[in-house]
Amino acid sequence: MTVVRLIPAGDGFDLMAGDALLLRHRVASPALFVGTGTADVDAYRGNYVLSDRLDARIPLTHSTIDSTPAGAVIWLAASAGTPPLLRIAVDDAGLALAALDPALNRFWLRCVAEPGERLWGGGEQLSYFDMAGRRFPLWTSEPGVGRDKSTQMTFQCDRDGRSGGDYWNTNYPQPTYVSSRRYALHLDTTAYSCFDFRDPTFHELEAWEVPARIELFAADRFAAIVGQLSTRFGRQPRLPAWSYEGAILGLKQGVESFARMEAMIAAGAVVSGLWCEDWVGLRVTSFGKRLFWDWKANETRYPHLREWIAALADRGIRFLGYVNPYLAIDGSLYAEARAAGYLALRQDADEPYVVDFGEFDCGVVDFTNPAAADWFADRVIGREMLDYGLSGWMADFGEYLPTDVRLHDGTDGMLAHNAWPTIWAEVNARAIASRDRTGDALFFMRAGFTGVGAHCPLLWAGDQCVDFSRHDGIGTVIRAALSSGMMGNAYHHSDLGGYTSLYGNVRTPELLMRWSELCAFTPVMRSHEGNRPDDNLQLDGDPTVLSHFAAMTRVHAALAPYVATLCDEAAKTGLPVQRPLMLDWQDDPDCWGIETQYGYGRDMIVAPVIEPDRDRWTAYLPAGATWIHLWPGTQHDGGRTVEVAAPIGQPPVFWRAGSPHAALFTAIGHMA
Amino acid sequence: MTVVRLIPAGDGFDLMAGDALLLRHRVASPALFVGTGTADVDAYRGNYVLSDRLDARIPLTHSTIDSTPAGAVIWLAASAGTPPLLRIAVDDAGLALAALDPALNRFWLRCVAEPGERLWGGGEQLSYFDMAGRRFPLWTSEPGVGRDKSTQMTFQCDRDGRSGGDYWNTNYPQPTYVSSRRYALHLDTTAYSCFDFRDPTFHELEAWEVPARIELFAADRFAAIVGQLSTRFGRQPRLPAWSYEGAILGLKQGVESFARMEAMIAAGAVVSGLWCEDWVGLRVTSFGKRLFWDWKANETRYPHLREWIAALADRGIRFLGYVNPYLAIDGSLYAEARAAGYLALRQDADEPYVVDFGEFDCGVVDFTNPAAADWFADRVIGREMLDYGLSGWMADFGEYLPTDVRLHDGTDGMLAHNAWPTIWAEVNARAIASRDRTGDALFFMRAGFTGVGAHCPLLWAGDQCVDFSRHDGIGTVIRAALSSGMMGNAYHHSDLGGYTSLYGNVRTPELLMRWSELCAFTPVMRSHEGNRPDDNLQLDGDPTVLSHFAAMTRVHAALAPYVATLCDEAAKTGLPVQRPLMLDWQDDPDCWGIETQYGYGRDMIVAPVIEPDRDRWTAYLPAGATWIHLWPGTQHDGGRTVEVAAPIGQPPVFWRAGSPHAALFTAIGHMA
Repeated sequence: MTVVRLIPAGDGFDLMAGDALLLRHRVASPALFVGTGTADVDAYRGNYVLSDRLDARIPLTHSTIDSTPAGAVIWLAASAGTPPLLRIAVDDAGLALAALDPALNRFWLRCVAEPGERLWGGGEQLSYFDMAGRRFPLWTSEPGVGRDKSTQMTFQCDRDGRSGGDYWNTNYPQPTYVSSRRYALHLDTTAYSCFDFRDPTFHELEAWEVPARIELFAADRFAAIVGQLSTRFGRQPRLPAWSYEGAILGLKQGVESFARMEAMIAAGAVVSGLWCEDWVGLRVTSFGKRLFWDWKANETRYPHLREWIAALADRGIRFLGYVNPYLAIDGSLYAEARAAGYLALRQDADEPYVVDFGEFDCGVVDFTNPAAADWFADRVIGREMLDYGLSGWMADFGEYLPTDVRLHDGTDGMLAHNAWPTIWAEVNARAIASRDRTGDALFFMRAGFTGVGAHCPLLWAGDQCVDFSRHDGIGTVIRAALSSGMMGNAYHHSDLGGYTSLYGNVRTPELLMRWSELCAFTPVMRSHEGNRPDDNLQLDGDPTVLSHFAAMTRVHAALAPYVATLCDEAAKTGLPVQRPLMLDWQDDPDCWGIETQYGYGRDMIVAPVIEPDRDRWTAYLPAGATWIHLWPGTQHDGGRTVEVAAPIGQPPVFWRAGSPHAALFTAIGHMA
Repeated sequence: MTVVRLIPAGDGFDLMAGDALLLRHRVASPALFVGTGTADVDAYRGNYVLSDRLDARIPLTHSTIDSTPAGAVIWLAASAGTPPLLRIAVDDAGLALAALDPALNRFWLRCVAEPGERLWGGGEQLSYFDMAGRRFPLWTSEPGVGRDKSTQMTFQCDRDGRSGGDYWNTNYPQPTYVSSRRYALHLDTTAYSCFDFRDPTFHELEAWEVPARIELFAADRFAAIVGQLSTRFGRQPRLPAWSYEGAILGLKQGVESFARMEAMIAAGAVVSGLWCEDWVGLRVTSFGKRLFWDWKANETRYPHLREWIAALADRGIRFLGYVNPYLAIDGSLYAEARAAGYLALRQDADEPYVVDFGEFDCGVVDFTNPAAADWFADRVIGREMLDYGLSGWMADFGEYLPTDVRLHDGTDGMLAHNAWPTIWAEVNARAIASRDRTGDALFFMRAGFTGVGAHCPLLWAGDQCVDFSRHDGIGTVIRAALSSGMMGNAYHHSDLGGYTSLYGNVRTPELLMRWSELCAFTPVMRSHEGNRPDDNLQLDGDPTVLSHFAAMTRVHAALAPYVATLCDEAAKTGLPVQRPLMLDWQDDPDCWGIETQYGYGRDMIVAPVIEPDRDRWTAYLPAGATWIHLWPGTQHDGGRTVEVAAPIGQPPVFWRAGSPHAALFTAIGHMA
């Protein structure tokens, strides 16, 4: 399909993306700029402050258009009579760019903005689903703790560790947006980029290199655009059925974890997996108990682990672990990788680059070296994890690649940094493929970038605070699912109960229960003990909380047949399982701005309670259907906001009257 | 004297400022850039966030030099064959610039930086005297409360009122710096500008218009450069002798103020003035008691004020009040100004522009209208203040001119904003001149900009927090004196005791006493009750504090003959009374970085105790003299750091052996 049309006009040109005027380039108001600058990077434990020492920003006011057999070519220059600085070849699906001066390392594009336009995507955004009116730097990093300069938590984290973050910080950025004007735009670059949606008349997209391509997508239906993006960036590998047929319990108390699991099963929980991230052993830091980053079973902490895993497998319960792309310098794998030359190096010495992860140091495996990537996939993940019996793991991190690292293939760290999460995902996927476990073994990642979903079967929303806070609490995982879903990622989930507990901020029973309710209606329901398990209430630490959790696991397990159909649909269309309402209900524009609810497929609307002290909740139900409140079974016409009772145990969920899954939903409605 | 030399070189040119290479302009590394942008101004009660929507930044790589009878002219263009964008006429004292495209509204200059270079000035800087390594936006504004993002005070003020500020925020910015390379540079513009001293190889100076001139000054001695700047920007009018012959008591309790003054005199204080800012009456807001901004005596709060003033005058005590350039909309002067058309207008209506000052609104007198300026000088300050009997006042504010205001003379608010403090100073000076009181009546200002000192006889360091904090406490007033002194301003002082008390932060007896000690050694010793007098300890609220204050007023009064000689010197040379050590002791480079001490003239070194809980203190004594510790009279060789006892009542002060004032200093040393 032809998405792009170039229309020479006056002293410039227009460019259409589908039916939307995307660029209006004129001498007096150019849409394209190139320049030069020098990046200044201030990095501290995954938190980055990037600033630009700008030398030049040249409006490319002068354009000439050549017709060639392959299509139109636009030559752009600063002014008539000066050499062109940018060549753009226009094809059906976008623009291929070539900088004609090798010194150019800055690029800006001004796209036409329209009043009321909504803009979705940017990777996985935690604070705002609609990006209109704000600026979004796109650089993989820690998302920050608090993420809101008006909160005490953010202030304390900024003060003590520069780690408070802001609304745009994310583990998974992606230079792609979908416009409500029914087109999508993607910058094909791994450089730092920034989408600035503040100006009422234009969107300014910045990148710290001239992107290879500006890719465009258009369709009348948003769902079709998301499908195109999923095709372009890669369908997520299908979720294994076991992963949504029960809860995955996150416990990390050594072999005590097994007994705790049994107690939770005895309390009525449906369990499909046991995730023990401490399978590698622990080290204690001021942040909390951290893992020992040497990726092999620790049979001191887990004696007879192989046998435990086999026994669980006999009962249909999978065992999951933890890995990340770094190697602690006091571990055996570091020594092995160093001896083989598999570690990324410093610029100033033929020595491994060592990164401070908070009271311990690590080497970085250099995945640009194919032998190193193979080693990690086969020797580490393959032999130490899959062959040992693991069926899954958290594939953590990916955001910390130093920009001043020296890599095997010569890639500049500034360009490798954003690419790293996707490379890391590919190493994990390759390991699974090497053992023929694709579609059966599961790994989940918080870090991401363009294309991560082609390799990683499951995103996870990162490390929320254990609270209801607006920018770092339970509600952010909904926005994360919505935005990453717009990029064509189908599967998303979160740490049940949140992760980060600092400065005395700890989990309440209410938070745990509301988060259980939310996770019951996401494809994977996985709990986490958090960074400071001993300071925080755990699911099995309170009988009411445990009983509620067990009930929610039963709801989750009961939904499995429905989720299986959503997985089928995702495989076919690329549509996410947790879905912005307008993908199914585009003709109801009141849906477009909703960011605290999601369609769980087309037949269910989930509006989790994400504020404390609430026993009622309001939800918007899309026009074009009649909706049945899951628990009492009452009917509501669509196209309106309803207020419903939302006691603990009955999260606001609605299903579509006439759904082929009506019998299942009705049965589930009788479970609470 | 010829300061500037242009040296054509290769594909560009060098430009010398005295003996320093200032510009090294080449095709590959241009020193000059022009561009276009649109300012975005977010203002809230005198706090501003300025951001730039940049369109173009054009390196002016191509230069040609013409010789003309008047001197060299440089034509600068983006590249060969394109029209020149900037014309620079080089003269002995600087560069005259002309933008050749009227659209150009951004300008950048990169000056050569050298390792170890120190940079002083930028107007009145509160946090850093040496600006090397940091970036300084230059825009008159509230200085912020806390001014340090790591403090709870700053966080709370940012959260509640966007008012926390940062190290560079100042009431008095000025686009002028003095380099340790023995030159000074001034940008002749009132536009927003920014001095960026972070890069090790260049200083980048930015302005939001092409400045009319880049003025250069050079001399072998820093003192001579400061003298040149004082000549250029205007000598401060001479301080009236009464202002340094005793303390000015700041009291604002209505007529109770008189009785409190008598009690302080009875306790031994030497008093030369009584400053009652509440002479206009009060209004109460959540920030504290605010004044009623209708500039006339309030004879309800001060019955028989004329008679009180006359009675004080008979005893040689002056009465001072308060004024600022705004008129409360509920006051009579507002109505008068509005009826006469003297108020600045809104862009969108022929209505006065009303500014929110925190729970009350005011109009802005439009001083670009000569009739309005005359009215304010004659009708308000002249008739209501001077004719009434006032001998001085705080001329507050000047930083709040809205950038979107409509002014009588058509000046863009973005250009008028920085100019306003100097215009405001001129209105005050004109009022005083109209009553032939120049050199007798005194006003003092916190706001400033280029040229403010030509009109305003006394700077005041603004509204410190009532504490010892690094960026908003007692120590900042020293840096303020040093930096504003480098601009050629001779007279500076501060609110004794600090001003801002928020969130339970209140004055301690120790703070009041240390501040008394500091003010004794500044030309004007003026107390202030602060924004919340009732919550805070006052000088007369504790017998120990009062007795200490009284002793310090006697020291201050005893110093008057010495201060008179410093005023003579200031009038002659432009050298400040409180003085960076290197102005007198340039040959001792260990002096150059000192920012917590000052020379009180050439014969005295003052090193105030600006930290709590100290009974000893260290001070650096310049090489080239022998120094006598004021109180015990012990001798110290210069060129070293000494640690001395610094109990309350004996601030670390040293005088130069051999000083013609030795007898006076010896006598003062026996007073404690």
